[in-house]
Amino acid sequence: MIIDIHGHYTTAPKALEEWRNRQIAGLKDAAQAPKISELQISDDDLRQTIEANQLRLMKERGADLTIFSPRASFMAHHIGDFQTSATWAAICNELCFRVAELFPDHFIGAAMLPQSPGVDPKTCIAELEKCVKEYGFVGINLNPDPSGGHWASPALTDRHWYPIYEKMVEYDIPAMIHVRTSCNACFHTTGAHYINADTTAFMQLLSGDLFKDFPTLKFVIPHGGGAAPYHWGRYRGLAQEMKKPLLEEHLLNNIYFDTCVYHQPGINLLTDVIPVKNVLFASEMIGAVRGIDPQTGHYYDDTKRYIEAADLTAEERHMIYEGNARRVYSRLDAALKAKGR
Amino acid sequence: MIIDIHGHYTTAPKALEEWRNRQIAGLKDAAQAPKISELQISDDDLRQTIEANQLRLMKERGADLTIFSPRASFMAHHIGDFQTSATWAAICNELCFRVAELFPDHFIGAAMLPQSPGVDPKTCIAELEKCVKEYGFVGINLNPDPSGGHWASPALTDRHWYPIYEKMVEYDIPAMIHVRTSCNACFHTTGAHYINADTTAFMQLLSGDLFKDFPTLKFVIPHGGGAAPYHWGRYRGLAQEMKKPLLEEHLLNNIYFDTCVYHQPGINLLTDVIPVKNVLFASEMIGAVRGIDPQTGHYYDDTKRYIEAADLTAEERHMIYEGNARRVYSRLDAALKAKGR
Repeated sequence: MIIDIHGHYTTAPKALEEWRNRQIAGLKDAAQAPKISELQISDDDLRQTIEANQLRLMKERGADLTIFSPRASFMAHHIGDFQTSATWAAICNELCFRVAELFPDHFIGAAMLPQSPGVDPKTCIAELEKCVKEYGFVGINLNPDPSGGHWASPALTDRHWYPIYEKMVEYDIPAMIHVRTSCNACFHTTGAHYINADTTAFMQLLSGDLFKDFPTLKFVIPHGGGAAPYHWGRYRGLAQEMKKPLLEEHLLNNIYFDTCVYHQPGINLLTDVIPVKNVLFASEMIGAVRGIDPQTGHYYDDTKRYIEAADLTAEERHMIYEGNARRVYSRLDAALKAKGR
Repeated sequence: MIIDIHGHYTTAPKALEEWRNRQIAGLKDAAQAPKISELQISDDDLRQTIEANQLRLMKERGADLTIFSPRASFMAHHIGDFQTSATWAAICNELCFRVAELFPDHFIGAAMLPQSPGVDPKTCIAELEKCVKEYGFVGINLNPDPSGGHWASPALTDRHWYPIYEKMVEYDIPAMIHVRTSCNACFHTTGAHYINADTTAFMQLLSGDLFKDFPTLKFVIPHGGGAAPYHWGRYRGLAQEMKKPLLEEHLLNNIYFDTCVYHQPGINLLTDVIPVKNVLFASEMIGAVRGIDPQTGHYYDDTKRYIEAADLTAEERHMIYEGNARRVYSRLDAALKAKGR
């Protein structure tokens, strides 16, 4: 079985964006604020957007199951206040839940949290609990920078985030560290802010000792870990100067990298440098890079091709495609086993 | 000949730091402000710090010449106002000039600019001109984020920076895009801010069309280009979606990457993905990562070893060590030729 741990509902029906635009307009002019009930998306609408897009490509490429979360770039945690984010997160998570209900063999949910800049993260717990208990979601996306490119929150090692971590440990769910659209004109969203955030989060975790407090906490750093694997020698050296344990011991019982690296040499480096047990298959399809690579004639984000061509044994490939995902996302494993998969 | 294009005077005599601390204290209490003449560093002081450190390691490792600029992390452009930066830059550049005078076979200068947040970059021109004309410097360091991690300046493609670019073109000197110490607690300086800045700068240049206005402008993106080579497929794909030319044509006549990547797999990827004509030898020694890699028994930043072990022809290695540096830093080439080298 091939599990893609990183997919967002980037193809949601247009009605969702229209409702969101009205919600944003309503922040200035309450008369324009829509009711939740005014958002009407039918099961057929959902089926259509999935069958024509993600599910079609999964079948073409040979992926079986996607861990599916709301569109990252649309999370826009900085808009409005906590209540704005809470309503928006609830709507987006529910849509992913409905997709998982409609295509139970192919999608399972991961939650966006109703984060809001400067607001205590424990306000996110209710949505998190609903998504895990009622929706059967198997992970969350955690945004280390709700400001969207101004980086005004404490580092991930700060006690600020502990309420979330306590719940993650209680439910044994991992968090993917994932920012959303950049509001800072210096940072292109998918070309700089995403990759920088991955690198920043990795370095925050390296600099601290968070996993002494939470030995079973699990983070997935997407986009192949940002710059971390490419600069693995730098990070080993910096850890050494900080008198930290070797990275294998210091971080790699708790941190995992996905395979959203869109060319063969990058995947080769990732699987060469990072222990295979820490690499999880993903494509972030349909996402930032949607074109066909003229050098290969295949989609840039068809990452399965790179894993197939990498210097890996069949057993290692199985770990990347399925084994690691079942271990890291234990609730996914339980859900699959309950269905005899 | 082996030319290391990226060295900072990280080992300057303690008196420099003490003078700087007094300068900073003087911003609050003018009585504490030191005169420039109170900074006294003898030639012997300079000789000692260089002979015991950079020059010793260059000889041990087999590098002949280093392009030498003031310590990047100490540039601290956010401190005080333009005049504060102007005085500080003048002092730091003069020290590098004196080192180059004392060791003319081994060091040649590159300038730090007296940037200051919110101040027009053209205020840097006088220092730049002095360094090129009087000191014989062959390049500059340009900080895309004088705020130090708050990213409040326009992108590098903005006309804001054009006065610097016009001078760079006039003198045919390249700029290394190099930030300094992070004032934002989210970003570790050498583990996140440096690498993020490289990635950010690359993406800014990719998103724009700066080299249409300045076809001969040259930038060096240090630290192996941040995350760019590792995610080269992502960047090729993003450029494609933006209807830009292929990266070879769009950027690689103007952008170069150094080899400050501190492990073999990273250098292998860099030299595999990026055309050899765009890769310049560098170590940033003595810099961020000073230890010995237990996996190899050699210094992490002894990057010559990785170049030696990479899959390159003798001709390609010569380009990385010398040929590219002479082409990109044309004033270096002229200075060497004037000495019959």
